[in-house]
Amino acid sequence: MWCGVSAALWPVRCRSFLLQCRNICSGNVGRKSVVDGVLPSFRSVCGEDGVSLSEAIREQHGKDESVHKCCPPDVVVFPRSVDEVSALAKICHMHCLPIIPFGTGTGLEGGVGAMKGGVCFSLRNMDQVLDLHVEDFDVTVEPGVTRKALNSYLRDTGLWFPVDPGADASLCGMAATSASGTNAVRYGTMRENIMNLEVVLADGTIINTAGKGRRPRYDWPDETSQSRKENAGYNLTNLFVGSEGTLGIITKTTLRLYGIPEAVVSAVCSFPSVQAAVDSTVQILQSGVPIARIEFLDDVMIDACNRFSSLSYPVTPTLFLEFHGSERSLEEQVNTSEEITQCNGGSDFQWAKDEETRSRLWKARHDAWYAALALRPGCKAYATDVCVPLSMLPQIIVETKEDLIANKLTGPIAGHVGDGNFHCLMVLDPNDPDELQRVHLFTERLARRALAMSGTCTGEHGVGLGKRALLVEEMGAQAIQVMQSLKETLDPKNLMNPGKVLQ
Amino acid sequence: MWCGVSAALWPVRCRSFLLQCRNICSGNVGRKSVVDGVLPSFRSVCGEDGVSLSEAIREQHGKDESVHKCCPPDVVVFPRSVDEVSALAKICHMHCLPIIPFGTGTGLEGGVGAMKGGVCFSLRNMDQVLDLHVEDFDVTVEPGVTRKALNSYLRDTGLWFPVDPGADASLCGMAATSASGTNAVRYGTMRENIMNLEVVLADGTIINTAGKGRRPRYDWPDETSQSRKENAGYNLTNLFVGSEGTLGIITKTTLRLYGIPEAVVSAVCSFPSVQAAVDSTVQILQSGVPIARIEFLDDVMIDACNRFSSLSYPVTPTLFLEFHGSERSLEEQVNTSEEITQCNGGSDFQWAKDEETRSRLWKARHDAWYAALALRPGCKAYATDVCVPLSMLPQIIVETKEDLIANKLTGPIAGHVGDGNFHCLMVLDPNDPDELQRVHLFTERLARRALAMSGTCTGEHGVGLGKRALLVEEMGAQAIQVMQSLKETLDPKNLMNPGKVLQ
Repeated sequence: MWCGVSAALWPVRCRSFLLQCRNICSGNVGRKSVVDGVLPSFRSVCGEDGVSLSEAIREQHGKDESVHKCCPPDVVVFPRSVDEVSALAKICHMHCLPIIPFGTGTGLEGGVGAMKGGVCFSLRNMDQVLDLHVEDFDVTVEPGVTRKALNSYLRDTGLWFPVDPGADASLCGMAATSASGTNAVRYGTMRENIMNLEVVLADGTIINTAGKGRRPRYDWPDETSQSRKENAGYNLTNLFVGSEGTLGIITKTTLRLYGIPEAVVSAVCSFPSVQAAVDSTVQILQSGVPIARIEFLDDVMIDACNRFSSLSYPVTPTLFLEFHGSERSLEEQVNTSEEITQCNGGSDFQWAKDEETRSRLWKARHDAWYAALALRPGCKAYATDVCVPLSMLPQIIVETKEDLIANKLTGPIAGHVGDGNFHCLMVLDPNDPDELQRVHLFTERLARRALAMSGTCTGEHGVGLGKRALLVEEMGAQAIQVMQSLKETLDPKNLMNPGKVLQ
Repeated sequence: MWCGVSAALWPVRCRSFLLQCRNICSGNVGRKSVVDGVLPSFRSVCGEDGVSLSEAIREQHGKDESVHKCCPPDVVVFPRSVDEVSALAKICHMHCLPIIPFGTGTGLEGGVGAMKGGVCFSLRNMDQVLDLHVEDFDVTVEPGVTRKALNSYLRDTGLWFPVDPGADASLCGMAATSASGTNAVRYGTMRENIMNLEVVLADGTIINTAGKGRRPRYDWPDETSQSRKENAGYNLTNLFVGSEGTLGIITKTTLRLYGIPEAVVSAVCSFPSVQAAVDSTVQILQSGVPIARIEFLDDVMIDACNRFSSLSYPVTPTLFLEFHGSERSLEEQVNTSEEITQCNGGSDFQWAKDEETRSRLWKARHDAWYAALALRPGCKAYATDVCVPLSMLPQIIVETKEDLIANKLTGPIAGHVGDGNFHCLMVLDPNDPDELQRVHLFTERLARRALAMSGTCTGEHGVGLGKRALLVEEMGAQAIQVMQSLKETLDPKNLMNPGKVLQ
């Protein structure tokens, strides 16, 4: 009985303390004066140039590529090392100032908005590629290193990093948001490709999530590496991957690399129906073809792409495919896939090997976002992000298209169909409150349709600001309570990117 | 300042409470009488047959396949459903009784020993395969379903589950210990193949780690499925995978399935040196050959296998390889790999397609454990489990063999070389305290050698009982503190499998 009572008591104690701290942190006037007071300490850590109060800089760091309105931080700091990040975090922690990590600002869910003001940690000055090990297929990078920067650094090594969300995002930002994209069907998402993280916690503590990391190898004392597999204690790496800056600041990530494929073939194929395109996808995966990319575009999307890129693809559901492998295995992969698409009524199967034709084929897919925007000049775009079991994809896409038409909304569909993940690129007039409301209600219906099909409200963009309520519906109160308790354990003052992921 | 003080205070409050609770839980006499008191409640939950005090049953549930001594629980319960697991857990929670989940007892690190007595939850009566979705490549299983049982269930579907730790373990147990094995180099470990878990927490709360799960699909109301990808909130799934029963009881797992390969080819190749075998492995991986298995056996291991299975492989470092794919891609995979092995001085490259010859080829690898034991009849075996970056593998294996010889120890080496993970199968006389001590010191030296090479003390077997101190050395005090705080958050009374993973 005694146990029962105490067990019931302690969370209450902790929570009441947290609430008091939260109130202090969110008091606007009080906070601004606190910020003014700590500026000298910030400057002593990362220099005069490392601290900015300029309105332009703060505005620039208060928004990402989503439609969420800009929420500028009180100040932006530019640390140059993990020790500076840690020192700055300690100051923020002591003074209860919110901390918002910032990579490249290419997120799509409002993840960098300073909802409660505070200090934006821009990590662009930490941009070194560290410890490349070709033999071990791994590399460690600082948060300022982007996906494209890493791949050009790797160009002559025969290796590459395949996760490709489209934007040239910071790799640590991609870790924080668990990015994925078009290659995930073959190479996995960030989650499957991160071997270790260096993280600065809310109180400034520096940890490595998988082994101490940076352990000098006694043959090459200046180098470090990482074992490909480990089963040592709780998996901290995956707790921070996808935590969207709410549990800590990722200051280093060790990534798994892959051999650059000997050859690449791209293909495009048109289908009489969504069902036919999805059936082909399932059968291609089932047949064991190690397809690298398999992207779906609906008729509206293809039409937009034709107009935007002066192409002439048939205006029907379409698959864009990419195959990686040896010359010989590619021939087989392409033949098997073409047979499958033909059995499902696919036509105009065009494929290309040379880079120029390949990039022309893929141009439509790569320009989809701009093609959608061009449908209504002067409008903004917002991408939905549901993901469902493959078998449910035709049904949800058909119902969603009916919903779009019924509500007079423009939302061409592009999807990573191999994962069951698709996006409606909602093109909307930000100055039309009625349309904004209709889009809002549509995206909620779409998410609930996905949940009803055992799907998720976010396959890759994350929860950020806009999906916190949907997350509760998806996970259920009990699992949310577990997430909440993990957050309170690692960040008891709720300083790390407050107001994101959890409500 | 106020914040700083309180932040410093609250963990102290919580900890002192936890310590008091721990003391109560570990009092032996007190606990036994508590157990007697709750037996009627246990019986009312899972029936007379569902509760056992028999010494034989308790002994059987107090040990796994490791050399750790048997630690029987006070009582073994056999729940038949997640609701019974939850009801039993609530009783244990109210009375501060330790809970030890038990699958098949095939663990290798003493994970099931009841270090503080308490209640063993044997999950063998929950043995249903649920919700198979061939089109979605997923299946959900209860904890009593083993790896082999699932694959025979799947036989006619064209799908299979590839993770293969050797033993016919329970799939939920494999999730709890993050098992991997010989196929991991191509298909990943449990971590990469678990889509959702149903977990009962220490207080009896039931959660799903990735979406509510068991959500009726409105087309087939009795079925459920799972999206292949999700990015919704913190990754609870991977927090429980590998937690070794210390955070909750896994009562259901949804697994990713794969198409059964059209064809399989096995091969064996001998090498002049460890370096040559490892270089071949790295080059095969680098060349993009999607190798399914690549196993290393050292000369001592091969010699033992030759004797045990009346084979005649050259007594040199040897690789066993397996390729999965289409007839045509296999030919190319095998040719590429054979060329690479030849460039590295590999010889006697034998390969086989038909099942009978394949299983004869692999017999040596599959019987390695027994072959090692046969080296010293009447002795026991203990498998070390370090994992290092591939580039460090030759050096650590060479140094480890020297160490074995210098200390007169029998420890043939078999390894999942594609992952940098290898095992010394230590054959030891359990009645020779001096040898036990030498083995103990050797395994510590081996683990520290791996850590010095940025490796891990456990690639797949987990921490369990014997590696808790090494885990601290590997992770560092700060990361261990984070793990400890996660444990205290999810299990404040330290009831879940106490004394494992963390000290």
